[in-house]
Amino acid sequence: MIIEVDDRENSVLNGELEKLGFECVVKRLKVGDYVYKGVCIERKTIDDFCGSIIDGRLEKQVERMKNEFEKNFVLISGAIKDRSSEIKENCILGMMVGLMMKSGVYVGQVDNNKQMAFMIKRICERFDEECSTNVKGGEKNV
Amino acid sequence: MIIEVDDRENSVLNGELEKLGFECVVKRLKVGDYVYKGVCIERKTIDDFCGSIIDGRLEKQVERMKNEFEKNFVLISGAIKDRSSEIKENCILGMMVGLMMKSGVYVGQVDNNKQMAFMIKRICERFDEECSTNVKGGEKNV
Repeated sequence: MIIEVDDRENSVLNGELEKLGFECVVKRLKVGDYVYKGVCIERKTIDDFCGSIIDGRLEKQVERMKNEFEKNFVLISGAIKDRSSEIKENCILGMMVGLMMKSGVYVGQVDNNKQMAFMIKRICERFDEECSTNVKGGEKNV
Repeated sequence: MIIEVDDRENSVLNGELEKLGFECVVKRLKVGDYVYKGVCIERKTIDDFCGSIIDGRLEKQVERMKNEFEKNFVLISGAIKDRSSEIKENCILGMMVGLMMKSGVYVGQVDNNKQMAFMIKRICERFDEECSTNVKGGEKNV
């Protein structure tokens, strides 16, 4: 499985992805941090997530993702209670609900890079399964 | 805002919901733990979530939710690392991805009952906003 990785991403997660069988192609991505076929993943620590709510970056990122990709994910590592940002927890929770219900973006939360890598792997596998089901369904209808 | 609550649910969360302006109608629900109009919410601690993967309950619950309600949520309190269950973390992560991508269920994760109550409130408000937008959109098209 070949995944495109933005060159500003940390290499620890790339190492975890490689352990799971991915080949990481590092390049400057216009949108998202990880791209696999029609899947775009924006990866954030809980503090990045808070920061991007405060400065309005998150909404712009999500808009660009939605314009370019079929399935879009924001994957957060760390719990709300672990943030060092002073943003109120209600703002974070409200943004999570908005991403899911208004923007149609999948939101996942994990504890660390190892879990993040495995979640990314399952997302990519599931996407491939869906594509293969759709193709089979299409063939039946021919 | 009136929300229906299964009578087997813990009253601490109901107290938090009441603080946020909900009126909780406690009754025996056939599906889910919290129901607000077309929204069904299954609430789980991380250990409940693990247990319901192991015994296969979760998949049945989700199937029933999808048959009855428009928008379905599984809200988990606690992080994967905090579980006392011996289930492997990859099973948990795989189930989360399956719920989101295969079953079309929204998955949210929070730290405690206070955050859970606020997330439920935002979900219900967002649902009302969507309904009102749909009605307005419909009127325009008449």
